[in-house]
Amino acid sequence: MYRWNNDYNHGAHPAILQALQQTNQDAFAGYGLDEWCKKGSLEIKKYLGRTDVDIHFLLGGTQANYTLISHALRPWQSAVCADCGHINSHETGALEHAGIKILTAPAEDGKLSAKALHEIVAAYRSSDVKEHITEPKLVYLSFPSELGTVYSKEQLQAIKQECVQNDLLLFIDGARMGYGLGAAGNDVDLKFIASLTDAFYLGGTKCGALFGEALVIVNDALKKHFRASMKQNGGMLAKGWLLGLQFYTLFADGLYFEITKKADAQADLIRNAFVKKGIALCPENRTNQIFVALDREQEKILAEKHIFENEGYSQDGRRIVRFCTSWSTDAADVDALIADIEKL
Amino acid sequence: MYRWNNDYNHGAHPAILQALQQTNQDAFAGYGLDEWCKKGSLEIKKYLGRTDVDIHFLLGGTQANYTLISHALRPWQSAVCADCGHINSHETGALEHAGIKILTAPAEDGKLSAKALHEIVAAYRSSDVKEHITEPKLVYLSFPSELGTVYSKEQLQAIKQECVQNDLLLFIDGARMGYGLGAAGNDVDLKFIASLTDAFYLGGTKCGALFGEALVIVNDALKKHFRASMKQNGGMLAKGWLLGLQFYTLFADGLYFEITKKADAQADLIRNAFVKKGIALCPENRTNQIFVALDREQEKILAEKHIFENEGYSQDGRRIVRFCTSWSTDAADVDALIADIEKL
Amino acid sequence: MYRWNNDYNHGAHPAILQALQQTNQDAFAGYGLDEWCKKGSLEIKKYLGRTDVDIHFLLGGTQANYTLISHALRPWQSAVCADCGHINSHETGALEHAGIKILTAPAEDGKLSAKALHEIVAAYRSSDVKEHITEPKLVYLSFPSELGTVYSKEQLQAIKQECVQNDLLLFIDGARMGYGLGAAGNDVDLKFIASLTDAFYLGGTKCGALFGEALVIVNDALKKHFRASMKQNGGMLAKGWLLGLQFYTLFADGLYFEITKKADAQADLIRNAFVKKGIALCPENRTNQIFVALDREQEKILAEKHIFENEGYSQDGRRIVRFCTSWSTDAADVDALIADIEKL
Amino acid sequence: MYRWNNDYNHGAHPAILQALQQTNQDAFAGYGLDEWCKKGSLEIKKYLGRTDVDIHFLLGGTQANYTLISHALRPWQSAVCADCGHINSHETGALEHAGIKILTAPAEDGKLSAKALHEIVAAYRSSDVKEHITEPKLVYLSFPSELGTVYSKEQLQAIKQECVQNDLLLFIDGARMGYGLGAAGNDVDLKFIASLTDAFYLGGTKCGALFGEALVIVNDALKKHFRASMKQNGGMLAKGWLLGLQFYTLFADGLYFEITKKADAQADLIRNAFVKKGIALCPENRTNQIFVALDREQEKILAEKHIFENEGYSQDGRRIVRFCTSWSTDAADVDALIADIEKL
Repeated sequence: MYRWNNDYNHGAHPAILQALQQTNQDAFAGYGLDEWCKKGSLEIKKYLGRTDVDIHFLLGGTQANYTLISHALRPWQSAVCADCGHINSHETGALEHAGIKILTAPAEDGKLSAKALHEIVAAYRSSDVKEHITEPKLVYLSFPSELGTVYSKEQLQAIKQECVQNDLLLFIDGARMGYGLGAAGNDVDLKFIASLTDAFYLGGTKCGALFGEALVIVNDALKKHFRASMKQNGGMLAKGWLLGLQFYTLFADGLYFEITKKADAQADLIRNAFVKKGIALCPENRTNQIFVALDREQEKILAEKHIFENEGYSQDGRRIVRFCTSWSTDAADVDALIADIEKL
Repeated sequence: MYRWNNDYNHGAHPAILQALQQTNQDAFAGYGLDEWCKKGSLEIKKYLGRTDVDIHFLLGGTQANYTLISHALRPWQSAVCADCGHINSHETGALEHAGIKILTAPAEDGKLSAKALHEIVAAYRSSDVKEHITEPKLVYLSFPSELGTVYSKEQLQAIKQECVQNDLLLFIDGARMGYGLGAAGNDVDLKFIASLTDAFYLGGTKCGALFGEALVIVNDALKKHFRASMKQNGGMLAKGWLLGLQFYTLFADGLYFEITKKADAQADLIRNAFVKKGIALCPENRTNQIFVALDREQEKILAEKHIFENEGYSQDGRRIVRFCTSWSTDAADVDALIADIEKL
Repeated sequence: MYRWNNDYNHGAHPAILQALQQTNQDAFAGYGLDEWCKKGSLEIKKYLGRTDVDIHFLLGGTQANYTLISHALRPWQSAVCADCGHINSHETGALEHAGIKILTAPAEDGKLSAKALHEIVAAYRSSDVKEHITEPKLVYLSFPSELGTVYSKEQLQAIKQECVQNDLLLFIDGARMGYGLGAAGNDVDLKFIASLTDAFYLGGTKCGALFGEALVIVNDALKKHFRASMKQNGGMLAKGWLLGLQFYTLFADGLYFEITKKADAQADLIRNAFVKKGIALCPENRTNQIFVALDREQEKILAEKHIFENEGYSQDGRRIVRFCTSWSTDAADVDALIADIEKL
Repeated sequence: MYRWNNDYNHGAHPAILQALQQTNQDAFAGYGLDEWCKKGSLEIKKYLGRTDVDIHFLLGGTQANYTLISHALRPWQSAVCADCGHINSHETGALEHAGIKILTAPAEDGKLSAKALHEIVAAYRSSDVKEHITEPKLVYLSFPSELGTVYSKEQLQAIKQECVQNDLLLFIDGARMGYGLGAAGNDVDLKFIASLTDAFYLGGTKCGALFGEALVIVNDALKKHFRASMKQNGGMLAKGWLLGLQFYTLFADGLYFEITKKADAQADLIRNAFVKKGIALCPENRTNQIFVALDREQEKILAEKHIFENEGYSQDGRRIVRFCTSWSTDAADVDALIADIEKL
């Protein structure tokens, strides 16, 4: 069976394991106060075009999301996101558990629009009884979105403009950042993201690392005491260097970008195969996640050799399923899947 | 100026103040462990047709809502309500602040439908990754709804059926319970509500008391340690007898039902006046809250002598406003308003 | 039976009920945005010697404590108090429930000492791993203390000095403020307290009001959004004027100070009677709470006619009990108690 | 420089890295639903003498502690521990952040005594106002304790007896479990611990793994929905098999016990060297942490070649420091340290 159901079903890029092996005899300071965390941060900063940011390494995406957001907001403030946003739909209410209300807008192809954001903020601004509602204060979006689509530079600028005009923070969940940056047609880079956001993170778990996410805090007001928030929320790894080392390995020679871009190209090949067969992409995107609507027969045939993920039903009753490529996807596996699609 | 903007703009029914006066020389045990809380509970129980409930007196509706719900739910469980539900829209995220996520369904005339509830529960039931989402576990609705409409017996039974089939708790916010029960055409009574719910409360603040809400806990599993939850959430009044005494006064001779029914009838008169003028009710209801869509001229004229509440805009651009009658509304004021409506 | 067990066993000073009666026909804006809240605030400010404070009326002490403290602190910060502090010992963990850790120091006669505070702060300051512990950030004390003792001006200044040197907030719980200010030998007044603290409250519940506490926010940084915190924590009364009116009544002519001072004097008479009998005060104080250690026989005899509160045992095995006078205590009752003490 | 400051300054036992390497080409189901988590659990269960437990793999100790305890307790309940307990002293108030109050007793050589526990519970049981305080409901202790001492079977049985008599849960933090079990004179084994507790965890981070803790839930009432709590608290690793595989590797052939026992023996050698020099152990223990009081000269000399951790001051003004051995400690390093101690 071929596993396409997600992009975190293999361990790590060989270079990561090699780095762990090579440093295993060395002793390091604990809790992220080691040289590899410094070196990993330095390599990441090279891509940001700025050094005035704090970089912290956390263990997973849910943890990064609620730790940063609950660190940034006060109890009377809320986070705004698309209704399909990961914090709203797949994190077991972690943000509400941390005391923060989420205000949602209907997504457009998985994305939050500046217009929808504007309406949420305007409703608060025009309220006569502001103390009876929460203050929208932070915008959460993921790049790429839950549906693998990427925001254009223009879309992000429009959202940023709303943020600036209304004193909102902008936070980007980059669990799959590499796949977004590497997508055909994408016009956004890390410099742009670092110039736009108050904080964002670069996912490692889904992009070649064994585990770990690199959180970049741009806004000075969010920097102080963040390590205390990490510790309090179970996000400070005793052996922090394991994370710094992995991000050093991924960023020192651009490996991060190379392996995710390759996966995007593989996904394009698979998408093409589906499209040729007249199978609709829903929605279209150019990143490593492929969403298609299969009829019962198609689903059954593909399921014989391939594991993919059920994502619900389309309005015409077909099953929507997800295939993911990743940094670990073999060219031969892609060929096999394409051959099976062609046979449908 | 006449104040119609809400139903809590006067102190208390004279009988309440008289009761406070008459007991002011007496000394009582603190924290609700006094004779008046017992007597108030007994009088309420007579209307419930059952004595196996616990009754606690809290200070306000927001407090009653989040204290009961956060007492009832575990961190991984969520509350379900209509999107316009008070806990979702007017309580500054108090429930999320208490760690509980709210799942919302689009309201129909202010009400949650059994069908919408079913869909939310079905989505959880059919999920392959239940531990990544919250378990819908409690249904919150208010009687009457935020828009003054009342649920029929049949509608509540359909909701209850979903609750039984899916092991959900049912909680009714009765901040305006008297006005719901007294509405023309209502077929629900407190016996029915006490047979249906796991907990509900009878509002005092808006129904003749100075302040206070009587929370009725029906489900045995929710009874234990509730006083600790009250204390922990700032809801245990040192001079608890002030609340018991007020509810005794309202329920001993049925005053609660009489004064709210009167207000419903007054609202009907006002509604009739609007309808005669061709001014749309939005929505129609028979309780003490009147929602109408006024054009700019109508709004301006009425605002000269009357204070009412802005509720947003209708799709055709007219202003939706709310007029409330209450236990304290004078017949003469109703006449004055009607006269002004007729002059429009 | 005479009730001495607490100072909140009667309704309200007659002037309070009269004020409620006189305004009962009037309609007011809701949620504390009314004229009585303004007028009540103005009267209080006259005693503070400053007008640049925000005054909010809350419903009870526990609520005032956790709402203010959790509004003021961030998740990684903690509150410091004496181990017997009300927030630590009598509020069902309300502050921890709101996410805030409490650091405690052994009390001296119910009071926190500047020295103990210094040690707690020094331990944080000297820590190499500050992100693994909470930052002590707010000092909580009550005036008078849990044991009815009052801090001298000098003691408070010493505590303030620690706060200034270490950037700590100072918050005073004044649930019994009147009794503290009226105590023989007390050298503190409200002007001093308002010059010293970041926030404090003046208790109404135990000092002549039906219910309610007036929270004074001095520090500008704590003012913004406090009404949202009140609403979110169930502390915003719909009929807010009921609170403003009560505090207006208590402060407009100094009634607050007069009735609490009288109670202190009554307590002094009772204390004298105990001391004459050789019964030890534990500890000595001059406010309305009398703590004495009774042997079994003394306890039994007094319990025949008097209700008092059990406070544990002294080291020599006698029962420590509390008698309270209050604004509602009759001179005749004091005489009766003294006569019974003399007969021991 | 030799690093003795903690027991988590090296990566992982070589067998762990080898296992990661060997499985790196394989694809697995996510979130702990894979075969290695099953196999790891099975190996652990062999040492517990029972299979009716749930085993979950979490990422770190703080996370394991607050996730389990806040899953187990309701808001009005509290956890009891020694004042030096890790949850009270080194986790940035994580448990209070999760809403849970901690009640502490003075530690005896780092341990909670059954007697101190009894007093805390008795204070609650005898209270007349239970709803004003939290209900002590869970006992937290670590094995070995914060000071490296181990509880005897008899001590744990006495604590268990208190738990049984008062309906308390017993939870053991086993971050250093291996070092406790391997200590000379220890009479406790995992079978005993699994028979005694409601939940406990086996630390991997400090005992040979790269990272990870294996939480064993014994009490059926705590099992349901625990995966939801893990996800909500950021403790569910996407690539869960990384944890299962590590614990399989440590437990399949008893490696866990072997490598920690070796470290205990190394620590004994170092302790002997200190004692021979007349340097006091504070306290005495037989696990991998060595606490000694050094005078300024001794400290200075040892610091030239060795890194150790500052733990405060003894009453006579000497510095208390900690040296740790671990699974990764070389015999040659031990010899070097002993030689330097002998030269003092």
